[in-house]
Amino acid sequence: MTWTSDIETARARISAHVQVTPTLITQDFGLTYPVEIKLEQLQHTGSFKARGAFNTLLSADVPKAGVVAASGGNHGAAVAYAAQALGHKAKVFVPELAGASKIALIERTGADLTVVPGEYANALQAAQAYEAKTGAMQIHAYDAKPTVIGQGTCMAEWDAQGLAADTVLIAVGGGGLIAGSLAWLQGARKVVAVEPETSCALHAALQAGTPVDVDVSGIAANALGARRIGSICFDLAQTHLGQSVLVNDHAIASAQRALWQDRRVLVEPAGATALAALMSGAYQPAPQERVAVLVCGANPAPDPFDT
Amino acid sequence: MTWTSDIETARARISAHVQVTPTLITQDFGLTYPVEIKLEQLQHTGSFKARGAFNTLLSADVPKAGVVAASGGNHGAAVAYAAQALGHKAKVFVPELAGASKIALIERTGADLTVVPGEYANALQAAQAYEAKTGAMQIHAYDAKPTVIGQGTCMAEWDAQGLAADTVLIAVGGGGLIAGSLAWLQGARKVVAVEPETSCALHAALQAGTPVDVDVSGIAANALGARRIGSICFDLAQTHLGQSVLVNDHAIASAQRALWQDRRVLVEPAGATALAALMSGAYQPAPQERVAVLVCGANPAPDPFDT
Repeated sequence: MTWTSDIETARARISAHVQVTPTLITQDFGLTYPVEIKLEQLQHTGSFKARGAFNTLLSADVPKAGVVAASGGNHGAAVAYAAQALGHKAKVFVPELAGASKIALIERTGADLTVVPGEYANALQAAQAYEAKTGAMQIHAYDAKPTVIGQGTCMAEWDAQGLAADTVLIAVGGGGLIAGSLAWLQGARKVVAVEPETSCALHAALQAGTPVDVDVSGIAANALGARRIGSICFDLAQTHLGQSVLVNDHAIASAQRALWQDRRVLVEPAGATALAALMSGAYQPAPQERVAVLVCGANPAPDPFDT
Repeated sequence: MTWTSDIETARARISAHVQVTPTLITQDFGLTYPVEIKLEQLQHTGSFKARGAFNTLLSADVPKAGVVAASGGNHGAAVAYAAQALGHKAKVFVPELAGASKIALIERTGADLTVVPGEYANALQAAQAYEAKTGAMQIHAYDAKPTVIGQGTCMAEWDAQGLAADTVLIAVGGGGLIAGSLAWLQGARKVVAVEPETSCALHAALQAGTPVDVDVSGIAANALGARRIGSICFDLAQTHLGQSVLVNDHAIASAQRALWQDRRVLVEPAGATALAALMSGAYQPAPQERVAVLVCGANPAPDPFDT
């Protein structure tokens, strides 16, 4: 059993349920070089998280009590959506921090939803308590193998779509998406991890030599604000990660605005974080280096259709 | 000289300047069948209009006085963008109806802008007076051959991207986009024209047997509110159009909301008008008929980044 064959298998397993997301090559955002972009924010429920959710549910015996998830919003929406699509009960614990738009997104799926005061870790505690009490299956947002394998199908799909880049920039929260990408690529392309300065669990872990707790805040915290990097991600990053860079909230907000103004791609701050590394110069490609940016989340607050 | 070879030539001519826009296949929006979609609203300045603008400027000797355009917004933005990219002066007359977001979009290109009270026809008059006075080159929004040929490159590109549909639904204002599409396809696929009930210049012309003036109003009027269908479009429609259908503002608003909620594609009402024909049942595909929707404009009001 290898990561790559697991991801190939997962890609076939979930193919009837997930959206193949489009790619484009564009030169905008004040950059002097073209960038390959994958619009993974067009995935069901507005982020890559649907991939991990479907892979988990389709490769397990789901108990009658259904599934339970803790989520800053996007993972909860994905689990709720996937559970509904596959006929399972879903219970989602969302930190207050997630905001009204993401909470409404989860509500629309029909899941049973509890809003927990505070940040992600509090929601995770509540979800663990629910799991112990009911026997519902816990779906971790990022640090579980079926989740990571599911997220890895995004990069596998991009490869199949003809990705040419030498280097791929990926935003990191708990590390599920980048872990899946590293697991799929196995060093075949350079992967650059991009984190907000104020929510940088991977960066801190790499510096400390082991996952450590970090404080989380900032405009992307409701999606990227994991207090501790996932151990699966950390292990893969130690072997395969090309570089870890940080961006500040101003750079993230500028990238979010540029994606809309230059290319009419509306994302949440987390979805613009990888691009922010190029626009701010936090990552500077070498002269002939071809770069790609994975746009991963599109659930902004306020939602443009909130009344 | 034929339409198809002209469009092929134009596609090569403008290729360094326009965005190849992505496509996807999705089943959403409450529909029971998949739909192919081209995200042409990701084009420069947020609509297909950049194609016609670049084709016109690159296939003419532009006078020193530069170019002038009258536009409900999207054409003006495209002409201003293309002129700036190619080093020409640009004067744009915009009807007040265009709204603050589109006016700001044009301002960002650096064009000389005049807002004209009332609707599109008033802006066109002002542009014609400016042309007569200065010798600037008039770029018509839809009823000129280089404009139509440029817009036709959108469908040519989609064909090259592997479009499979039997039937393509296209929103119609003055008819530039659908004219270019009909000119390219030459009957190879069924083309369905979709217009708002309250801005239906093509529908009225087909009923009358000749282009006639219509009143324009409704939520898509700032992009689709042409008072009279272009003669080039009318001639092509008489030969090649498969069907003409109408949708009401409620259907357009529902489609606009569904594109965002189901697929995170944010468009203006005009950009959702073609999809509205499927969602409302104004166009009902036969059981095995494969359908495609051209999403053509993404400049909503209010702009999500308006402060």
